[in-house]
Amino acid sequence: MMIVMHNDATDEQINLVVARVETLGMHAHLSRGTERTVIGVVGDGRKIEPAQLSFLAGVDHIVPISRPYKLASREFSPSDTVFPLDGVSIGGNGIVIIAGPCSVENRNQFLETAQAVREAGAHALRGGLFKPRTSPYSFQGLGEQGLELLCEARELTGMPIITEVMSPDHVALVKQYADVLQIGARNMQNYALLHAAGEGHHPVLLKRGMSATIEELLMSAEYILSHGNRRVILAERGIRTFETATRNTTDINAVPVLKSLTHLPVIVDPSHSTGHWEYVGAVARAAIAAGADGLIVEVHPRPEEALSDGAQSLKPERFAEMVKQVEAIAQAVGRKLAVRESHVDQPLVSVSQVPAGLDR
Amino acid sequence: MMIVMHNDATDEQINLVVARVETLGMHAHLSRGTERTVIGVVGDGRKIEPAQLSFLAGVDHIVPISRPYKLASREFSPSDTVFPLDGVSIGGNGIVIIAGPCSVENRNQFLETAQAVREAGAHALRGGLFKPRTSPYSFQGLGEQGLELLCEARELTGMPIITEVMSPDHVALVKQYADVLQIGARNMQNYALLHAAGEGHHPVLLKRGMSATIEELLMSAEYILSHGNRRVILAERGIRTFETATRNTTDINAVPVLKSLTHLPVIVDPSHSTGHWEYVGAVARAAIAAGADGLIVEVHPRPEEALSDGAQSLKPERFAEMVKQVEAIAQAVGRKLAVRESHVDQPLVSVSQVPAGLDR
Amino acid sequence: MMIVMHNDATDEQINLVVARVETLGMHAHLSRGTERTVIGVVGDGRKIEPAQLSFLAGVDHIVPISRPYKLASREFSPSDTVFPLDGVSIGGNGIVIIAGPCSVENRNQFLETAQAVREAGAHALRGGLFKPRTSPYSFQGLGEQGLELLCEARELTGMPIITEVMSPDHVALVKQYADVLQIGARNMQNYALLHAAGEGHHPVLLKRGMSATIEELLMSAEYILSHGNRRVILAERGIRTFETATRNTTDINAVPVLKSLTHLPVIVDPSHSTGHWEYVGAVARAAIAAGADGLIVEVHPRPEEALSDGAQSLKPERFAEMVKQVEAIAQAVGRKLAVRESHVDQPLVSVSQVPAGLDR
Amino acid sequence: MMIVMHNDATDEQINLVVARVETLGMHAHLSRGTERTVIGVVGDGRKIEPAQLSFLAGVDHIVPISRPYKLASREFSPSDTVFPLDGVSIGGNGIVIIAGPCSVENRNQFLETAQAVREAGAHALRGGLFKPRTSPYSFQGLGEQGLELLCEARELTGMPIITEVMSPDHVALVKQYADVLQIGARNMQNYALLHAAGEGHHPVLLKRGMSATIEELLMSAEYILSHGNRRVILAERGIRTFETATRNTTDINAVPVLKSLTHLPVIVDPSHSTGHWEYVGAVARAAIAAGADGLIVEVHPRPEEALSDGAQSLKPERFAEMVKQVEAIAQAVGRKLAVRESHVDQPLVSVSQVPAGLDR
Repeated sequence: MMIVMHNDATDEQINLVVARVETLGMHAHLSRGTERTVIGVVGDGRKIEPAQLSFLAGVDHIVPISRPYKLASREFSPSDTVFPLDGVSIGGNGIVIIAGPCSVENRNQFLETAQAVREAGAHALRGGLFKPRTSPYSFQGLGEQGLELLCEARELTGMPIITEVMSPDHVALVKQYADVLQIGARNMQNYALLHAAGEGHHPVLLKRGMSATIEELLMSAEYILSHGNRRVILAERGIRTFETATRNTTDINAVPVLKSLTHLPVIVDPSHSTGHWEYVGAVARAAIAAGADGLIVEVHPRPEEALSDGAQSLKPERFAEMVKQVEAIAQAVGRKLAVRESHVDQPLVSVSQVPAGLDR
Repeated sequence: MMIVMHNDATDEQINLVVARVETLGMHAHLSRGTERTVIGVVGDGRKIEPAQLSFLAGVDHIVPISRPYKLASREFSPSDTVFPLDGVSIGGNGIVIIAGPCSVENRNQFLETAQAVREAGAHALRGGLFKPRTSPYSFQGLGEQGLELLCEARELTGMPIITEVMSPDHVALVKQYADVLQIGARNMQNYALLHAAGEGHHPVLLKRGMSATIEELLMSAEYILSHGNRRVILAERGIRTFETATRNTTDINAVPVLKSLTHLPVIVDPSHSTGHWEYVGAVARAAIAAGADGLIVEVHPRPEEALSDGAQSLKPERFAEMVKQVEAIAQAVGRKLAVRESHVDQPLVSVSQVPAGLDR
Repeated sequence: MMIVMHNDATDEQINLVVARVETLGMHAHLSRGTERTVIGVVGDGRKIEPAQLSFLAGVDHIVPISRPYKLASREFSPSDTVFPLDGVSIGGNGIVIIAGPCSVENRNQFLETAQAVREAGAHALRGGLFKPRTSPYSFQGLGEQGLELLCEARELTGMPIITEVMSPDHVALVKQYADVLQIGARNMQNYALLHAAGEGHHPVLLKRGMSATIEELLMSAEYILSHGNRRVILAERGIRTFETATRNTTDINAVPVLKSLTHLPVIVDPSHSTGHWEYVGAVARAAIAAGADGLIVEVHPRPEEALSDGAQSLKPERFAEMVKQVEAIAQAVGRKLAVRESHVDQPLVSVSQVPAGLDR
Repeated sequence: MMIVMHNDATDEQINLVVARVETLGMHAHLSRGTERTVIGVVGDGRKIEPAQLSFLAGVDHIVPISRPYKLASREFSPSDTVFPLDGVSIGGNGIVIIAGPCSVENRNQFLETAQAVREAGAHALRGGLFKPRTSPYSFQGLGEQGLELLCEARELTGMPIITEVMSPDHVALVKQYADVLQIGARNMQNYALLHAAGEGHHPVLLKRGMSATIEELLMSAEYILSHGNRRVILAERGIRTFETATRNTTDINAVPVLKSLTHLPVIVDPSHSTGHWEYVGAVARAAIAAGADGLIVEVHPRPEEALSDGAQSLKPERFAEMVKQVEAIAQAVGRKLAVRESHVDQPLVSVSQVPAGLDR
């Protein structure tokens, strides 16, 4: 932390700042310039509230020097974090593709989609039960009554399941049914939820808030890491800007920036980051070209009937096409699609065998 | 809802869209322009997911016509919502000032500040126990152990107490100690929390998310209102923009826009919206000049020792000065500071009488 | 300028950076922290391109310490810049109101508006001849053929005239007809234009670009000041954000920030910063409450016929009302409306005397 | 254009709006919903100023339906615009790479870079003479005295030359020396300059303004096209957002959006859109993966000595590496690097033959 003094700060003011720094258990180091004096604070600045110094007489402003996160930084852990997810490596050389519907709407829709994305090459299945909707009048998800469907889809396809948790008191329950907990963009700074997700070892897919900086995303990851859970996947899902042609603006820069700052796996969500299925393929390719470790994509068999986010959902055949394009890009950057090392011999069950009467 | 067709949409495509609209229980109304056909959807569009139509062949885009919120709108309820808060009217002609420290740090700090802001003219006391902090290494608030201090401050000063809730399972507990529940900017779209706050009749101070549109703020208010609680206060607390000279950008436009769109009381938080105590007074005056119904301001007796947000906290004497300036502005716009109709005869206790040993 | 080294920078790398700093004619000052070394650059950092240092091995990033502008800073010139404009002081205690139509459309419209705003209390008249329009198909202004109308309006009302210049080669011509040159938001970084406006002593009203930071606005002012012209008025006219309820977001924080950083007069344009006439009054009051030195407001006798920006134009009677409200706010902050010291005894000519046949 | 009426608009108000629409030469078409009436305006809405209608009593807001640009739209011209640039096709299947220094600093630096990028596979050479710099104290470019160097570099390398014009009165002069005129981000809405560039047939590289929407970029292109020049190349160069980890935020979504909306070639500038050379390669690959037709990249032989933008400049060897990666990505999306059809047999002259004494 560097304390930049006003250009007319007096020696007395400078001395008081130095004294305050020492009181806080740090060392002060003076650097007198032609216009201003700068006081370096030597010690771990993460423990100090900058305001405790910025408020002193003669102080112009405070410049942080250390990164405010530690466990998430590449300086702390230079090599990439890689962990297994049901036979697939996340964070390694293989590109991981997570796909599925925005919401689990009913049994047939979910199982049909699950099977289609599996056949097209997806490695994991997404499906939301608790839906954060802007409007109280929109479909809010099946909630707890859909949990059994997650298990059924896993058994049917052999794929691990990713679903969103919205409240700390859901975490324990959802862990019994899902393989990965998703923390959505609106909850990136829901610290009670980060805390709950930080306990135990279920992998957490942490989405960047729509107006969160890259640094804030890493600070939220730090909450999870500092509670003991090291299995965090970061997801760029578009940020809010002035541009209205797309739902959000994919911050493609964030991919190489995150890969440089952190050892955690980084994936991109081209469905939310564009909001239009026509642009999902282009941005999925761009993400992998820029160095992302995977994708999370919304797929729906009949987007025109989807109860949420239909406009950004790919039909299964377009998703299959996207996977092929992504594979070509992966090869162009010296990678490949992740390979599942099937630990169980999972026979595929056809969705047509599912009795229609059980549909909700 | 208007469905704008592509300029080369065929009659068959148009007919299919019309059929789909009718299937959804609405009426379709065609308007053929020189370049495009527009299909008006007659009925309550709030029930339809736009994607269910935008995905059909030949559709260019969908334009919503109705406002997506209802109970929060001035069309629904033309006259201002006014409700009493411990003898003070919120939302009426009187300007309400809420003040206090960012965090309750300890007994002495809180009670000293409470008394100082009361003497300077504040109507209600703020103080956070559960603090949403970007860094897991920052002070996280006293938590539940500080709840008794809220009661003590109320008894000491006779002022109602406002404190933040961060998790749905805290709501019931905090209601026993606080008069107003604050939902912070990071939780504006924490729907589980909105749901919990929407039950019962404790007033809720809902802060605008840092990248939430005015419409989204009203949608979040709609969640609370639609669960039965009509006592919602909206707070503009600055939005995130590219400008870095201040912590956030006060969206002063939001004040007249909100007063035009909704009947709910609107207050401004100049402490968070600027992030620097030097600018708090100017923006507080601007807020009242623009038509706000009140202010929420951070005050700390010794900002340089504050455990959070010291840089934006006013010292008590500056706060007292601000109240005088705000009073002058209120008069210039034909209003005045709210007057407490003291229902209890509250003797003031001096903070010096508080035994120091009880300090935490 | 402080050079922050990587946490694993070697002594050799540090020595090379120090050597490079000395080569550039500055002094280097080392400060070794627990995690990183910071090298202070002592000397006038404005002359160095940061990249010349950021690129060296072991450098993490560069932190500028000095403000990049000098002549515009309050540190350079602590007391407010005040200059006369045709008998009215700009930048002093009096609030200056500039009003008029967005575009000069024809003789009647311009003279009628001129007289109306003069009667309502305006101090100066605005009117655009060269219009920067997003669409090539929109009205582009009368151009040079309207210049005589500016003179006629000045003679009719005795008010000084403000008009926009869009091209360096117009500057000399426009100076012969107008009293103040306006540089619009889209041209805030049109350096050829800033250069041209910086020569001579015609006051320049410099509008903040829609995505310009406060610092960049001051840098653009610095261009004008450094070419010798000290008569610069800064105008906050709203910035572009994600919010779409208003045309722009008025950065009300910018008022106290600018008053703190610079000695130049600061005015606000509530017409462009809101885009809706309904909100102009509220934001005009807020601007003066926040400390602005004046306003520039669009007025049109028949906004529904305006060839540009009708939606944000006030009718003359509403403008008159706004002036009264602003006067009340001015008094509440210890100021008043500026008073013209009539150096010439200017008889008012009624617009009805203008022969209609001369209308364009 | 659709006119959305207030929910309490009277029949009289509706009739007046209809009458006004007819007066403006268009037809009105009523659509009465359950909450509101919407009036469709049939005819070419581009000619109407929306405010002329939004101001009428009972009108809530106006919704544009037609795109505001025409010549730039894919609806107007469905097939891609392709034009030759000195033997290279722009806008076709081949990827075009433009490279060179930010500023032409002196003869040796420019010719050395020219030769290096040519050898690495660049198709055209960039180099700025008139530099738009935020600070008046920064290097402003060689100006007119550098024009001869452009010719010399073209003769040396056989590559066409791209340079920025900042003022309309430079256009004629620069055309004599350069092959492509660049209009920079700060000048995207400098209409006098767009007008000047629109005359004649010199290709124009139009950069997106840092806070311009995609639609505004197309409107600026429309200015050039409507003046008769059809050779416009659009460049995404990053937009300004709240994120500060990079200089700008590359709007990668803009690539597929532009390819869908317009027939004009689209290139990306990863140097400005990231601001850090470390991220240039990743974003260059992403751009081509997303469907861009080319790149414009800053290269400098000794970035640490660059007089502008050194931090974002690639060294020649890294640029060569980037070209190889881009070629692999191009193949993965079914394209290839553009091939020059050498119309002249251009012998390469070594830079070592350039007499050092001529260096400026």
